[in-house]
Amino acid sequence: MPQTIVESKTKTTIIGFDQPFCVIGERINPTGRKALAAQLEAGDFCTVEKDALEQVACGAAMLDVNAGVVFHSNPNPNETEPPLMRKMIRMIQEIVDVPLCIDSSVPDALEAGLEVCGGRPLVNSITGEEERLEAILPLIKKYNVPVVAISNDDTGISEDPEVRFQVARRIVERAADFGISAHDIIVDPLAMPVGAVPTACLQVFELVRRLRRELGVNTTCGASNVSFGLPNRQGLTAAFLPIAIASGMTSAIMNPIRDQEMEAVRAADLLCNNDANAAVWIKANKPATTVTAKGRRRRRAG
Amino acid sequence: MPQTIVESKTKTTIIGFDQPFCVIGERINPTGRKALAAQLEAGDFCTVEKDALEQVACGAAMLDVNAGVVFHSNPNPNETEPPLMRKMIRMIQEIVDVPLCIDSSVPDALEAGLEVCGGRPLVNSITGEEERLEAILPLIKKYNVPVVAISNDDTGISEDPEVRFQVARRIVERAADFGISAHDIIVDPLAMPVGAVPTACLQVFELVRRLRRELGVNTTCGASNVSFGLPNRQGLTAAFLPIAIASGMTSAIMNPIRDQEMEAVRAADLLCNNDANAAVWIKANKPATTVTAKGRRRRRAG
Repeated sequence: MPQTIVESKTKTTIIGFDQPFCVIGERINPTGRKALAAQLEAGDFCTVEKDALEQVACGAAMLDVNAGVVFHSNPNPNETEPPLMRKMIRMIQEIVDVPLCIDSSVPDALEAGLEVCGGRPLVNSITGEEERLEAILPLIKKYNVPVVAISNDDTGISEDPEVRFQVARRIVERAADFGISAHDIIVDPLAMPVGAVPTACLQVFELVRRLRRELGVNTTCGASNVSFGLPNRQGLTAAFLPIAIASGMTSAIMNPIRDQEMEAVRAADLLCNNDANAAVWIKANKPATTVTAKGRRRRRAG
Repeated sequence: MPQTIVESKTKTTIIGFDQPFCVIGERINPTGRKALAAQLEAGDFCTVEKDALEQVACGAAMLDVNAGVVFHSNPNPNETEPPLMRKMIRMIQEIVDVPLCIDSSVPDALEAGLEVCGGRPLVNSITGEEERLEAILPLIKKYNVPVVAISNDDTGISEDPEVRFQVARRIVERAADFGISAHDIIVDPLAMPVGAVPTACLQVFELVRRLRRELGVNTTCGASNVSFGLPNRQGLTAAFLPIAIASGMTSAIMNPIRDQEMEAVRAADLLCNNDANAAVWIKANKPATTVTAKGRRRRRAG
């Protein structure tokens, strides 16, 4: 069974079918976060620091790091993003010990991150687009790191799951030409919003099974996509994740601060026999011990 | 695709692969409920009434009715259960309009329930035990009703899912000898506690897929069994149900009063394309409209 090995300077995480689901914290990303974007342009990393510590405390096994800010002072990300990514990666790996996921659409920012990142980070991402493959695969080979492969190509994102599967297959084949093995490719089969495409999730579940069976690759997705445009997005994601996990999905880029979704992941790990002796479940659901005014310990009702 | 049709006097519910998941309310059952048992012996049906109304209000599509009390005044259920079942069924079908599930280990209590129940109730249950098959299958045929078939037999409950599958197959074949079709058999593949059998849920998910594919039957289970002995049972059940539904399970006997589990069922219906236009999900997650002291309508934050 394929295992994708990711590492920080001190910690190894294995992504694989017989492993606990790998939660990749999505919070360190200025997209849609104006305050964070302004902070990053000003060189203020206090929110990044808080997000890093909090996500790891909530159980993230990895952290995604995205430096995609368009600076007001210089609107060219090709110039601003690489040094920002370098700073962010350096800072984050000093305060947390989980492996990182270097996330950028700017190839130079990916390389800047790879230069300073200890261990074996994950790169996010390649697609089936020719230009992207040519730019990123040599980096993946040079640094010997795993990569997220999103199953769209130069023709865009297909609504046909068969096309998305074939795009993934081509990426795996192209990577093989560079000497990169399938176990270092983590395919994102693209979960579309179920509110727009009623069969979107059924497609993803089936794609995950095929990707596992036929290509032997690990898989991931942006878990919150499926609920886009619908109310109670957490409630939907908390049902999506267990089905995805039981279908063979091995990681997701998601928000570990959300209790309901993390509980769903822990429950699915247990139900799918990836939590030996229910140890993680029992620990996460221990009644809290509180100290009363009289100094006696009391158990809160569960 | 097989459809199991259940009916009250006024309402039809279809259990099937392309239907919303059928939640069968489990609450009307004196097992382990001393106060309810005492009330039933005293002829007091106030809790039954409350449980019936509340479960339907919470979204139960059917109600299980179990009259299994051992009376202090007469410890023979063969004498006390049939008249009690008759009274309970009569009372419940006067106050709610959902189809009922007549649940007893006493064949005469099943027949008493069948005599007074309007529409097309579900009978709970047969097993592969010879005596049980001989006693109940003629009733099923006579009243032309569907039945829950639990996959254990005279040798007990097997931990081997292959054995449980073969027991289910034999029950379906025996029923066919009586002229009962597979679409009127709802197999319970027996979900064991995952705390005791780490592969219990994986077995159930695989069994549900096989039962659907190879025998063409609907399936059900006692959803809370899987979490027996573990903390935060609702959290586990809320992850179990979506996976079971995506595997093809079409109903469960469960507690509809529990929000988290019902939300998981609604979410799974939507994710599995059994909630057209997300209508049920959106309705269930509408921000509540409250009337303030000044009489203006206000939306509560979602």
